[in-house]
Parts: sequence; C-alpha cells; structure tokens
Amino acid sequence: MKIVSNVRIVSIDKTPQQATVSDPVSIVLDAGRIAWIGSKAQLPDRYQGAAVTDFGGRIATAGLIDCHTHIIYGGDRAKEFQMRLEGASYEDIAQAGGGIMSSVRGTRGASEGELLAQALPRVDALLREGVTTLEIKSGYGLEIEAELKMLRVARQIKRERPISIRTTWLAAHALPPEYRHDRDGYLREIVITGMKRAHAEGLIDAVDGFCEGIAFSVAEMQAVFDQATKLNLPVKLHAEQLSDLSGAKMAADHGALSADHLEYLGDDGIAAMAASGTVAVLLPGAFYTLRETKLPPIQKLRDAAVPMALATDCNPGTSPLTSLLLAMNMGATLFRMTPAECLAGVTTNAARALGLSDRGEIAVGKRADLAIWNITDPAELSYRVGFNPLHQRIVGGIYV
Amino acid sequence: MKIVSNVRIVSIDKTPQQATVSDPVSIVLDAGRIAWIGSKAQLPDRYQGAAVTDFGGRIATAGLIDCHTHIIYGGDRAKEFQMRLEGASYEDIAQAGGGIMSSVRGTRGASEGELLAQALPRVDALLREGVTTLEIKSGYGLEIEAELKMLRVARQIKRERPISIRTTWLAAHALPPEYRHDRDGYLREIVITGMKRAHAEGLIDAVDGFCEGIAFSVAEMQAVFDQATKLNLPVKLHAEQLSDLSGAKMAADHGALSADHLEYLGDDGIAAMAASGTVAVLLPGAFYTLRETKLPPIQKLRDAAVPMALATDCNPGTSPLTSLLLAMNMGATLFRMTPAECLAGVTTNAARALGLSDRGEIAVGKRADLAIWNITDPAELSYRVGFNPLHQRIVGGIYV
Ligand SMILES: [Zn+2]
Ligand SMILES: [Zn+2]
Repeated sequence: MKIVSNVRIVSIDKTPQQATVSDPVSIVLDAGRIAWIGSKAQLPDRYQGAAVTDFGGRIATAGLIDCHTHIIYGGDRAKEFQMRLEGASYEDIAQAGGGIMSSVRGTRGASEGELLAQALPRVDALLREGVTTLEIKSGYGLEIEAELKMLRVARQIKRERPISIRTTWLAAHALPPEYRHDRDGYLREIVITGMKRAHAEGLIDAVDGFCEGIAFSVAEMQAVFDQATKLNLPVKLHAEQLSDLSGAKMAADHGALSADHLEYLGDDGIAAMAASGTVAVLLPGAFYTLRETKLPPIQKLRDAAVPMALATDCNPGTSPLTSLLLAMNMGATLFRMTPAECLAGVTTNAARALGLSDRGEIAVGKRADLAIWNITDPAELSYRVGFNPLHQRIVGGIYV
Repeated sequence: MKIVSNVRIVSIDKTPQQATVSDPVSIVLDAGRIAWIGSKAQLPDRYQGAAVTDFGGRIATAGLIDCHTHIIYGGDRAKEFQMRLEGASYEDIAQAGGGIMSSVRGTRGASEGELLAQALPRVDALLREGVTTLEIKSGYGLEIEAELKMLRVARQIKRERPISIRTTWLAAHALPPEYRHDRDGYLREIVITGMKRAHAEGLIDAVDGFCEGIAFSVAEMQAVFDQATKLNLPVKLHAEQLSDLSGAKMAADHGALSADHLEYLGDDGIAAMAASGTVAVLLPGAFYTLRETKLPPIQKLRDAAVPMALATDCNPGTSPLTSLLLAMNMGATLFRMTPAECLAGVTTNAARALGLSDRGEIAVGKRADLAIWNITDPAELSYRVGFNPLHQRIVGGIYV
C-alpha cells in the first residue's frame, strides 16, 4: 500500500468535454488498484502508516493508453522514405523492394528476439511519456507462424517492461503475394484458421482488419468478424481511411469496440457508431505522414456523441510515430480537437476502444495507472510540440 | 585529449545533396577541436595514450544547430491554444489578454531567474536530441531593459548547460501598445538605441526583425539594418512568412546571413539570396502550427543553390516546438526536403545561417561538437516522428 500525496487530479466532464483540475488530494494505492481518494486531512486511520510520496501539487492524469499500434515489425522504411523524397515513383520503390511487403519480409525473417529488440526502443519512447497500456496488432507476418510470432513478442514486452499489453489479430492487413490469386484461400487458411489458433493459445484480445479498396472488402471483413464473434472476440476495423466503403457501419453493426482512421466516414457510419457505442479512433500521425487533406468529421462525431480516441498508429510505413503526446498535439492542431478531447482520447476513450472498463480515469476501484506531470494546465499536454513534461509514471501501483 | 573511436562519420556531398557514411574511424579531440581523423591503425604516435572510447561503429554527425529560436519568454499560451480550439475568435482571445502581448507581459514581469527556470526545460529537450549550438532571439521585452534581460538570460544558459549560445537582437518583433501611435519613436528609442546598448554590453551577435504587414515594413527594417551594419553586426530577417513584401531581397542586398520562413518568397528574393549567399532558414513548426498551405519554394531554392537550413522557431505562439529532430521530419514530410537536405539544414547550413565557420561538419580544425546516434542510416533522423536515437552528445570535446 502507498499514498500518492499532494496531486491535483484531472477529470473530464462531458458535453462539451472540459478538463477540470481538483484541489490537492491524496490517492491510496493498494494491490494495484486505487483504494481511496480524498483530502490528506481526511485520510482514514486504516491507511495511516502507508508510505507517502509528496508530489508538490503536481497534476495527475490516468496513465496514457495508446490504443492502436503496429509497433512490432522487422526492419524499417527509412530508405523508402528517402527514395520517395528524392523523387522515386511507387514503381521504383516497389522494384527496390519497398512498401508494406518489405516490412512483411523483415518480420518473417526476424527471430522473436530480434523483433523484441527492435520494438523495445519504440515502446520505451511511449513509456517515457506516461503510457501505461499499449495495444499491439499483428499484421506483418501474413502467415500463421509469423503472425503468432509477432503476438508472442507482444506478450513478451509485458515481461520486459512495466506496462499492460493488449493484442489484436490483424492477419487481414494485406494480401501476401503467395495468395495473390486466392483471396478466399488467404481469408480461410490464414486469417480465420490463424485466428482460431491464436485464440486457443491465448494470444489475442480482439480482431481487426484493413477494410479498403487496396486491402479487404466489407463483405470479406464481415466473414472474418462472424468468426471472431463465434470465438467471443471483440472486433475493430481500419475503416474509411482513403475512401468511404461503409466499413465503419458494418463494424458498428457488429458491435465493434472501435472503427479507426475514419477520414472518409459518412453520416451512415456516424449514426451506426453512435448507436452501438463504437469508439472513433483517430490517427493524425498517418494523416500527417501521408499529407492527407480530408479531415475526419470531428464536428459531426462530436454532435453525435461518438467517443473519440487518439493513437499513434505507430508503424514503419504511414506513421513512424512513437509519441502519444505528439498524437495529442496533432489531434488538436490538425483535427481541431480541443485539449480536453485530446486528453479523453488517450485515457477514457482509449480504454473504451480496448474494451477496458478498469482504467482510463482516476477513480476508486480503477487500476492504479497514473501519470504525474510538470504542468500547471492540462491543455499543455496538447499545446506543446515535441516536449515531454512527465514527472512520474505509476503502473499497477508501482512507481516506474 | 581524447579519442572517439569506431564511429562512422556522415558527410553531405553537394548537388544533389547526399549523405554518405564513412568506414569506422577514430577522431582525436584536443583542446575543444577536432585534431585528427583517420583509421585506428594509422593513429599517429603523438596521440597514443589518449583516453579512447569505442562507439561500436555507431554513426556520428556534427552536433546539431538550432539556428532560429525564441526560447526565452515568460508564461505560456496553452490557455489561448485551448480557447482557439474551443471556437474563440481572435477578438475573444485579445480580450482575454492573449496573443504576443501576453508573452510580452509575461516576459516583462519575470525576473532573470524566472525566465531562466522556464527556459531550461525547453533547452534541455533540445540538448537531449544532440543540439550543441542554439540561437536565441530577444523580442518579448519590446523595451530596452526587458530586451537586455532576455539576452542576459540567454548568455546565462551557457553557464548552466554545456552548449554554445548565439544571441540576436529582435526588438523589431512587434510594436508595443505604448508606441502604438509612434512607430518611428519605437524604432529610434527602443530598437536602435537598445541595439547600441546591447552591442556595447556584448550581448548580441546579430540583428533580426519581423518584416510583415502586421509588423515592420521593408523600409523600416532597412533603417534598422543600416544601424546594425555601422556596428558591424550581421543581420537576418523574418521575411515572406504571410505575404511577399520582398523583405528577403532587401535582407540579401544587405548581405544578410539568413532570411527566415519564406513561404511567400518570390523569384527576386531567390535570386538575391543566391547572389549574396544568404541562407534560407525554413521553419516547418510554424507552418504546421498555423496550418499554412503555401509551401516555401523548395525546388527553386534547390535549383538556385540557395543553402537551406531548418530550425524549431521555438516560441510560445506559433511554434511551441522543442524538437529539432521533429523539425527535420517536418522539413521532409511537409516541405519535401530530402533527408540529406534536412541533415545539412541542422548542421552545415545552420552554422552558416549563424555566420559560424568553425562548426557544422566533422573535419580537422572544427569545434569538437558531435552527436553519436543509435541508427544505421542517416535518413532515420528525418524518417521517425517523435523518436530520439541520440547515444552521446559531445560539446567542445567534452562528453555531456
Ligand atoms: Zn493501423
Ligand atoms: Zn521567429
């Protein structure tokens, strides 16, 4: 048992979202949970004697949650980034072995130890900013063994670092060349068969797919989701990033936890998401990296009270972003979300996008995952660009 | 004397700029300078016995140079950032005391110690990324004592941290309310009189101004530059950020070290800058924060062989950016500069923008300012977003 003393707690009120800061309080952490919150003077006798740390009136938020990443992969794509800026065409890059398949080759060819060693510095960058829960997707294996390998590495990160990990089955990320002429075969033999195996091995918490003209259709993803539902696995979907296929509507109709990207989301999708409580996970790092100009329909999502989350989408191609604070700044600067919406987007709503009701806010009974900051106003977390004011990260009641 | 052993040096070849990586070499550092570079086997006898640190084949660049910042100021503008995102108009914000004048009030009201304490965390964020030289402008005092106070704090940073500081007189940043009806008076009594005093006290290395419809005209800045030239102070100019006033041409005609921002730079300005060797300092952090869409004429600058630098423009209003690596990524992503151009932009060309010929590359006789990185390809420095691969910073021959 320990006492986090003299912190001011940020909470987010709804409609319109506003971040409010409490007077200084004490927070009792016990057995990994928040046991009590109140003013120091009113600390119950049963908590007297617990070790007290005084945080000097600093601001505390729930630990940050990065609810959408592809942080495990082999190799990087810096050379391809350079070629593109030097004027190479997509054909040039494909001929030089670039694109998502270069990450697939890099991932297939890497051992678990190599994948882990490459991912840890990226994970550490997130942890240094107060991230306490991290979602990680498969999707660069595109064959069962390589997908399972990615997920085992994801689970291993939890043993290497103080953090919660949630894993997502994303074999429906791209069609690998060996199945170029057999989409159904890929979905059946790899996506669905692999999902069952990953589930049997306890390696996945949810099922995801990339629903787009260049990837999988709504009907294809629907079949994948039907299988997920049979396994009692929640679903989520990369939808409406480059065009409006009504993927978000289909996902919402399946009770999806989240639909992600959503630049091209239409009114039908918004209505369906509002009805099902599906979270809109917005990924401004990909928007920025791809120099997109079509903004997700923030005002309409707000009006429909669809919860909005923000995540890094950390991946080697379209979002080599390892700063959730920067995702918050991009959410504000590029998407015009308010600072309170950005903070809710990496705490309460990010928890909801992962189906986790035990975290995302500072309240009695929740996990003792906290971030304590050297700031005086919570808006500073989205205002600054490339600055990390973290003072202390607390995971499951442990100062880390 | 010490030996940096087993590093691979990045150098940048010209036209088109390409970053090349050497075989592993040893670098002898002596009395703050680079004394010798060569293969370990050929180390001259006179250097035997110096302390050797093996860097395991890591990549070394010159220490990074942030050649344009307003990093010293009182207060912040997070509240104003929030108000704008919550839909407040510029009038609302002005009435609430926002805008540049809120930074002027915050700076005027702060002691040297307070300004220093507020600036140091921002400076430290830059240092952690390998910055070894930092330019700092005045310009939030707008009265002589407050401007001098800012510059004294800038000089003080050098005593608090291992870094080189260059200071710039920017009283011609905005017209303060007390001179609203007396522009000439402000230029004469504050900008020019203060410049002489700051120069006499050894507080400034260059003179700058904000040449824009909302600030000072070309003719006004010309008069300021004429005074600077009399004092043998080099000049530079914030030019063509929001419109084309031909400020860059005027600055180049004055032999300016740099013209900065340049989104609206016209062909006359490019030609004049090419003729005078004036560096184009590009500031993508302001472009990003202001959601500008007009790009600086990168291809024309490239064609005219105008050297291009990149800087954070760190300031509380239009670029609260404290990551020079992120400025590199923005230079590539938003401005389509190549990774080699981005690296030259924060090393060789940034040195040139400050009139410093003793740094910006790793060569015998140059200052022993180095950054050693956990990367395998120099393009990684611009490719990643919000990631810091710095392994070791070396300033004036000291590991820091
Ligand atoms: Zn994704
Ligand atoms: Zn500036």
